[in-house]
Amino acid sequence: MEIQIFEVGPRDGFQNICDYIPVETKLKIIDKLVDAGIQHMQITSFVSPKAIPQMRDAKEIVEICLKKYPTLDLFALVPNLRGAQMAYETGLKKVTNVISLSESHNRANINRSREQSLEELERILHTYPQLEVCVDIATVFGCPFEGDLGIVALLDFLQNLYEKGIRLFNLCDTIGVAHPKQVREIIKKVLEIYPDCTFQIHIHDTRNMGMVNTLAAIECGITEVQSTLGGLGGCPFAPGASGNTATEDLVYMLEKMGYETNINFQKLLDLSKWQTTIIQGNYSGHHIHIK
Amino acid sequence: MEIQIFEVGPRDGFQNICDYIPVETKLKIIDKLVDAGIQHMQITSFVSPKAIPQMRDAKEIVEICLKKYPTLDLFALVPNLRGAQMAYETGLKKVTNVISLSESHNRANINRSREQSLEELERILHTYPQLEVCVDIATVFGCPFEGDLGIVALLDFLQNLYEKGIRLFNLCDTIGVAHPKQVREIIKKVLEIYPDCTFQIHIHDTRNMGMVNTLAAIECGITEVQSTLGGLGGCPFAPGASGNTATEDLVYMLEKMGYETNINFQKLLDLSKWQTTIIQGNYSGHHIHIK
Repeated sequence: MEIQIFEVGPRDGFQNICDYIPVETKLKIIDKLVDAGIQHMQITSFVSPKAIPQMRDAKEIVEICLKKYPTLDLFALVPNLRGAQMAYETGLKKVTNVISLSESHNRANINRSREQSLEELERILHTYPQLEVCVDIATVFGCPFEGDLGIVALLDFLQNLYEKGIRLFNLCDTIGVAHPKQVREIIKKVLEIYPDCTFQIHIHDTRNMGMVNTLAAIECGITEVQSTLGGLGGCPFAPGASGNTATEDLVYMLEKMGYETNINFQKLLDLSKWQTTIIQGNYSGHHIHIK
Repeated sequence: MEIQIFEVGPRDGFQNICDYIPVETKLKIIDKLVDAGIQHMQITSFVSPKAIPQMRDAKEIVEICLKKYPTLDLFALVPNLRGAQMAYETGLKKVTNVISLSESHNRANINRSREQSLEELERILHTYPQLEVCVDIATVFGCPFEGDLGIVALLDFLQNLYEKGIRLFNLCDTIGVAHPKQVREIIKKVLEIYPDCTFQIHIHDTRNMGMVNTLAAIECGITEVQSTLGGLGGCPFAPGASGNTATEDLVYMLEKMGYETNINFQKLLDLSKWQTTIIQGNYSGHHIHIK
């Protein structure tokens, strides 16, 4: 059985590195990821350079990647219509819009209410019907401010998005509080209710449950999972969020268990080691499981 | 459902710390572990002080703990008859004898052949019939020298030990190469063949699979699991072995999933943080998942 690994390190990983990573370095890492077999990648986000200076080269990164990897499944995060416009103008076909299940995290992360985010999503869908829009739902498994919001709130939210035409969702454990029982309950339920939709998961490893939660989701029917090389990542606007599930760990486990990822583990591992030499010293979010 | 957590940090964790930890510090950590609710603990090992100088205070540690915690389930590791004698003389009731499934790891770890180890085990059983003897089977899921030895080799080995009267086994993933599929196959099989035996598991987190493998074992019927506070641990004689599953991570996950551990998570977490301030700087084996 094939599992699609969505590498989101160039977005969720790099945005948590304090020092700016030069475009050439970013491109070199992306290049090596592709060489290792990564076929799905979130390469940047079109956000305000004031809010996240690390992503200020989004346009350049996307334009180069689109030329260099015409068959790759590339996407970028866009928090609003302005971001979607910039993504669209580069020729990108797929964007991710992020909205939190939790009102307070949405305000902290996107600086607007959920209602305003939903209206903005509608504007994106209306203005750029050519774009494939995935919705990242943040804090699905728990919020740093409001705790566990419960499956009923999630289902209401999904229904709202479904009615707007969204068929691709990414369920995010933004701060790494999910546990396998909860993951199984949620995944089984959403797959049952929305058989015509695609659900990805995005699990942070804050409490060392990245692997166990990702496997729990896969064993309930999820076939698209997000992770970051070296377990980089976090959320600049969610206190306590630490790194994602590490892509190399995930690939190692899945291949050992007989799943197909079409990724060369050894190349990925070498790349992960090399990456730590590049960005060492200015990152503090990886594998902090004690908090 | 209750899961018994066997804290093995004072043995498997401390033995991997380069600098000697004073008796008072060890006792303070043990004291706080007990205060957090730990009821089962491997507190030391009776080994040659030349081989593992960190454990040279085994006698003192055990004597003090036996007096201080008369109701606690305490055990110590003994590699040979001499170790068993020392343990017996302290008044300890329970010892763990370690033998590797892999011949080459047994030679590296215990400095004798498996056959010699099995003979030594018989001497221990014959000389100290009053001692409850658990056998730690090392490299069950893979050996640094020989790779995966397979389930047939394990079942032969178990049968041999069973015929010697052993009913308590600890299946060790000494270098952290197990994966959930393998864990499930092995655990289901051994529980089916030996319903009158108790099996514990001891999983290293080398490739970040400590949690997922431990949960896989629990969901196949295992109720006794080993772990170490802060994920300390390793094997001085197994190249590439890194830390164990962290007790606090395990307790957090299991309690969230509705299992009972009877351990106070917050106390354990505070203790783990405090422990890092005590032993910081002279330990390098924790959570090295890249190799």
